[in-house]
Amino acid sequence: MTKEKKIKPIKEIPLGFVDRQEKELLIRDFIISNIKEIMIRYGFQYLETPSFEYSESIGKFLPDKERPDEGVFSFKDENKWLSLRYDLTAPLARYVAKNYLEIPKPFKRYQLGTVWRNEKPGPGRFREFLQFDADFVGTKSLQADVELCVLVSEILEKCGLNKKDYIIKISSRKITEELFKKIKVDDNKQKLSALRALDKIDRLGWEGVKQLLGKGRKDKSGDFTQGANLSLSNIETIEKQLKKKLPETNDLQEMIKIFEDYEFKNYEFDPSIIRGLEYYTGPIFEVNLKFDVKNNKGQVVQFGSIGGGGRYDNLVSNFGNYDAPSTGVSLGIDRLVYALMQKKDFKIKQSKPVVICVFDKKYSREYVNLQRVLREAMISTEIYPGENKLKKQMEYANKIKAPAVILYGENEIKSEKLTLKNLKSGNEKSIKLEELVNEIKKII
Amino acid sequence: MTKEKKIKPIKEIPLGFVDRQEKELLIRDFIISNIKEIMIRYGFQYLETPSFEYSESIGKFLPDKERPDEGVFSFKDENKWLSLRYDLTAPLARYVAKNYLEIPKPFKRYQLGTVWRNEKPGPGRFREFLQFDADFVGTKSLQADVELCVLVSEILEKCGLNKKDYIIKISSRKITEELFKKIKVDDNKQKLSALRALDKIDRLGWEGVKQLLGKGRKDKSGDFTQGANLSLSNIETIEKQLKKKLPETNDLQEMIKIFEDYEFKNYEFDPSIIRGLEYYTGPIFEVNLKFDVKNNKGQVVQFGSIGGGGRYDNLVSNFGNYDAPSTGVSLGIDRLVYALMQKKDFKIKQSKPVVICVFDKKYSREYVNLQRVLREAMISTEIYPGENKLKKQMEYANKIKAPAVILYGENEIKSEKLTLKNLKSGNEKSIKLEELVNEIKKII
Repeated sequence: MTKEKKIKPIKEIPLGFVDRQEKELLIRDFIISNIKEIMIRYGFQYLETPSFEYSESIGKFLPDKERPDEGVFSFKDENKWLSLRYDLTAPLARYVAKNYLEIPKPFKRYQLGTVWRNEKPGPGRFREFLQFDADFVGTKSLQADVELCVLVSEILEKCGLNKKDYIIKISSRKITEELFKKIKVDDNKQKLSALRALDKIDRLGWEGVKQLLGKGRKDKSGDFTQGANLSLSNIETIEKQLKKKLPETNDLQEMIKIFEDYEFKNYEFDPSIIRGLEYYTGPIFEVNLKFDVKNNKGQVVQFGSIGGGGRYDNLVSNFGNYDAPSTGVSLGIDRLVYALMQKKDFKIKQSKPVVICVFDKKYSREYVNLQRVLREAMISTEIYPGENKLKKQMEYANKIKAPAVILYGENEIKSEKLTLKNLKSGNEKSIKLEELVNEIKKII
Repeated sequence: MTKEKKIKPIKEIPLGFVDRQEKELLIRDFIISNIKEIMIRYGFQYLETPSFEYSESIGKFLPDKERPDEGVFSFKDENKWLSLRYDLTAPLARYVAKNYLEIPKPFKRYQLGTVWRNEKPGPGRFREFLQFDADFVGTKSLQADVELCVLVSEILEKCGLNKKDYIIKISSRKITEELFKKIKVDDNKQKLSALRALDKIDRLGWEGVKQLLGKGRKDKSGDFTQGANLSLSNIETIEKQLKKKLPETNDLQEMIKIFEDYEFKNYEFDPSIIRGLEYYTGPIFEVNLKFDVKNNKGQVVQFGSIGGGGRYDNLVSNFGNYDAPSTGVSLGIDRLVYALMQKKDFKIKQSKPVVICVFDKKYSREYVNLQRVLREAMISTEIYPGENKLKKQMEYANKIKAPAVILYGENEIKSEKLTLKNLKSGNEKSIKLEELVNEIKKII
């Protein structure tokens, strides 16, 4: 037996993590149930992979990854490293490789799950978040890419957004790929570095991006980020092409044609859309909200995208000789919850219990019976759960925002009546037992 | 820029983790929606704490804990250790301490969440699982303990179990506490060691337990477990008392009285119920299934409990001077899913999409329109998502267990009719476009 060591527990939570309250969770449930309903209608299969994967299985695809503890949370497990998934795409690729012979081809699956990023926490920067992903594996058909954009739109609209609230921006990696060919850049690391520079256009503008495409850039804090080392003329070629704003690649032209079949109009071509991950090979898309979102200081913030995705034709084949051209989309559920909470016209119902006050323990059976009748009528109800006097019970009922309290003491029990107090209006009413359910339904 | 390192990804998943398929996930969703509905009716607040906590906040309460990587998954985060939660009770205690002034008292909350155990994986031993917890914080009223047993029963019955399928076993730590007083054992470590020995009664029987109460026990593999070092006469006193099977403590007698008010009968007193955790102080309960559960070899296995809980009056006060006597219950959702999947009369509906076959891309608009009509009628539908010939399309539809395929080629389009093939019966039928929805509804 080991010596008892007294550890003083601390009551804070680590930076980048949060406790979530009921309202937020109910909105999240609402979003999730909409997603599930839509995914069934669209014929996707429901799948769940575990939180942990071997670091080797998913690590290759993490931006800037060198060691498994950069960007991801990892553990040494006997001889191997395990990592918490940082997205749902890398585990899908692993799943497809593992089950290649059994899965239908094409394979359509969706997943809802927490992902973790071991990044330096900052304001509004979380280290765990809930993501929704839908993917088509094993098809080159661009109809798949279109379906992803359409289904994301349907999800957003079912959650209460209208067409003016969001836009889906599309582009294609083929645009940048053709540009790299034109300027004769074929080193993968250099390409990736250039793509990451272009991905920062929203935040840094063309001036900052051009520094990152060249030698590098020093930020306000003095930190220097190494650039992609492209020549000045090459940088100019890129800028000129991307500013043209014409979807000249075949894949985008085909997608736009299919969008027309769907009568889907809520998209726009935007070549500054890059998406950070290196594995994209074709069309890429990004879901942007267009209404104002405020931070907790009430300032309007640039909310950025709440999701996106694209075509990745080679990811699964990293595991071996698997032919599985794929495309997928992700939505950040917590971000969508946050945005919906700010929409003035968005409401979610929170049910609070009617509280049955306890006058004397000897009436326990009477209270239990009242409670049963109400609960069977699907009315949220509780017998006051503590052991305090009436005044404290009323304070409790107000604190939890109970719609009403039931007063059922000795006199009431004798006269077979009870007092129902509406806590919104303050009104009290003496009613017969058999009227209780109907009277409460008027209040809640 | 760093040198590109080629890592060969592996397609296996770490031991103790699993991929979950649709059927399992749908049963899980069914259970979860039942739980949420019942928790609203019972007046519990919905809360979610993060996956990670500071190891110090939750570590103290982990059985056999010495270092944060024993039993839990932990990371060093700058100066502090973070751990993935191993249950939902320790984070609740931290939450209550952190928010003590704001929360209502008593505080009733429920949570659904994954917990992780960094244990040696073995057959049927998982390292992550989904748990449901409901707790009352800040009340000594045993009505709370009774409500927990009643609500767990209601959940199980709403999920399809009947009263013969399960039993709630109750006991109290006061029984063992009084025994320790009687035999004059007051060292906490020794008590805990004795409790852990008693907790193994199901698995080892009294002979094994008595070894563990004494010097210790060597298991089949030759591993020796240190015992609680009680004297032979003390061990006999314990055995005699626990075999009496009479709920003599005040708390149990009061609980039984309240069970009567609820007309709740599906419990039994069983003093061999111990529950492993050291923090319990009063009534403890365990939820046991009584029907046969088979492992994947078809052998009937001793399934053990699918949940339990008890009163813990001092856990929150470990964080400081907080008065928060509490009681809580947990259900292992994955275990309940597994058990439900084995009930013969339990069915869950899986919707598979009707597949619209693609004869020629030039009819894309026609296919999209058919798909829209069906999806708007809430029928799961997809246009074949690949780019293969009809034969492969039919193979795909059979593989995904589609209820029907729609054949709509050049001739059909000209004659404004389509062919609907029922994949269950094999029957084909030529129908008008406007009959489609109704005809499909007959099939699915």
